[in-house]
Amino acid sequence: MKLFLKLWFLGTAYNGYQVQPNGKTVQGKLNEVTERVFGFPCDIVGCSRTDSGVHAEEFCVAVSKKGMGCISLSIPTEKIPTALNAFLPPDIAVKTALMVPDSFHPRYDVKYKEYVYRIWNGEGKNPFFADRMLMLKKRATPVDVERMNEAAKHFVGRHDFSAFMASGSKVSDTVRTVYDASVSMEGNVITYRVSADGFLYNMVRIMTGTLLEVMAGRLSPEAIDDIIRGGERATAGSTAPAHGLSLHRVSYEEYNKGGN
Amino acid sequence: MKLFLKLWFLGTAYNGYQVQPNGKTVQGKLNEVTERVFGFPCDIVGCSRTDSGVHAEEFCVAVSKKGMGCISLSIPTEKIPTALNAFLPPDIAVKTALMVPDSFHPRYDVKYKEYVYRIWNGEGKNPFFADRMLMLKKRATPVDVERMNEAAKHFVGRHDFSAFMASGSKVSDTVRTVYDASVSMEGNVITYRVSADGFLYNMVRIMTGTLLEVMAGRLSPEAIDDIIRGGERATAGSTAPAHGLSLHRVSYEEYNKGGN
Repeated sequence: MKLFLKLWFLGTAYNGYQVQPNGKTVQGKLNEVTERVFGFPCDIVGCSRTDSGVHAEEFCVAVSKKGMGCISLSIPTEKIPTALNAFLPPDIAVKTALMVPDSFHPRYDVKYKEYVYRIWNGEGKNPFFADRMLMLKKRATPVDVERMNEAAKHFVGRHDFSAFMASGSKVSDTVRTVYDASVSMEGNVITYRVSADGFLYNMVRIMTGTLLEVMAGRLSPEAIDDIIRGGERATAGSTAPAHGLSLHRVSYEEYNKGGN
Repeated sequence: MKLFLKLWFLGTAYNGYQVQPNGKTVQGKLNEVTERVFGFPCDIVGCSRTDSGVHAEEFCVAVSKKGMGCISLSIPTEKIPTALNAFLPPDIAVKTALMVPDSFHPRYDVKYKEYVYRIWNGEGKNPFFADRMLMLKKRATPVDVERMNEAAKHFVGRHDFSAFMASGSKVSDTVRTVYDASVSMEGNVITYRVSADGFLYNMVRIMTGTLLEVMAGRLSPEAIDDIIRGGERATAGSTAPAHGLSLHRVSYEEYNKGGN
């Protein structure tokens, strides 16, 4: 068996999830703490990479004993979150732990992921949300948000999303299926939500940058179709900053609209 | 005239408001940015000191030209928030600016202040609120919160709050008038709110620590009266951590229950 953990982290202080030669990473912290609590070094495989400053409300990893591909623990599974949380820093938490078959792979077995991108639309800048939302220079109106939502609907479907991939990425298959995409406003917070079977590098941030162009009136909602068809990165909006982005849900079950 | 600024800051990254020999402070940042934007060094007087890690949703300062006790600015007052915000870091913002008479003093002229202390009462720790709420080890029930609220009511009135002052503080007058105090729960967040004509050093944090004792059933709500009367620091609860505390309102008008 492998140990499956659902985590939650605020990415502000980290150089992304994945261990790097330099800088503090979420995976690095997990390596330290699992070794300390379990008493041996572990292999930790995550569901995704995340960029520096990106958050996760749900992030899944599989833990096995280093080089073994499986793990056997004396501590009861239901006590693992409390045990790990006691040593993890305040900005990383384990929500749940369970044992899964050795064959489970936290990245390859994902059926869909949902990201949210949050934008603060209040008057002036907001120090309380500065590290977790994009601050708009010019406030959006409900009409702007409606336009963004209309534009987001054009992402839905099975498309080649090359235009929404960071230039220089080396991925041969750029076709992804977006199951749902929407923009809504609650109070002063605008949220872009998107779920797909997978995402290209920087895809959500480029989508968001493009939706901001729609908001500003520089692109029409229908222009999204042309940008997708053209496949040229330069025709999409700029890459929205990392700190507004959060991995919201990772699902190992098929997408089922309205379900889950 | 002096320049009056209403600020908002997240205290996590700062060694408190007040300039210190060591460490980054909010006042230090304001000194830098006002000098840069106005073109000359300034004297900045705040409404309060705040401890390291304490936040403020409303913090007032008066700015004058260094050594002059007044200021004359070429930039229109209504443009000052935008001008300063462009140079202030994301975790400090100016909300409003106005010109006030030279005689105005941001600390002495305060009629009352309101603090809030926030406690996360969800399951497990919450990385998104770790720097701005106390995480409870054991969840509180609605009944616990009702007991805390009942206890908080015993703070209201004009009392000698010596028991709720950090030991070692050197203040001769320890009498303060608490206008209102309450504990409420919304979703998973418990909030203690307290307004008074002034606060002793660590007073809100010791009050919160004492309310946590009431929550845990180690003190009765009525015990608050005895603790106030006894005036012994050791009989009150411990000092709750700084990061749950936020200065919520600073008023230069008389307290008016239900008003403002």
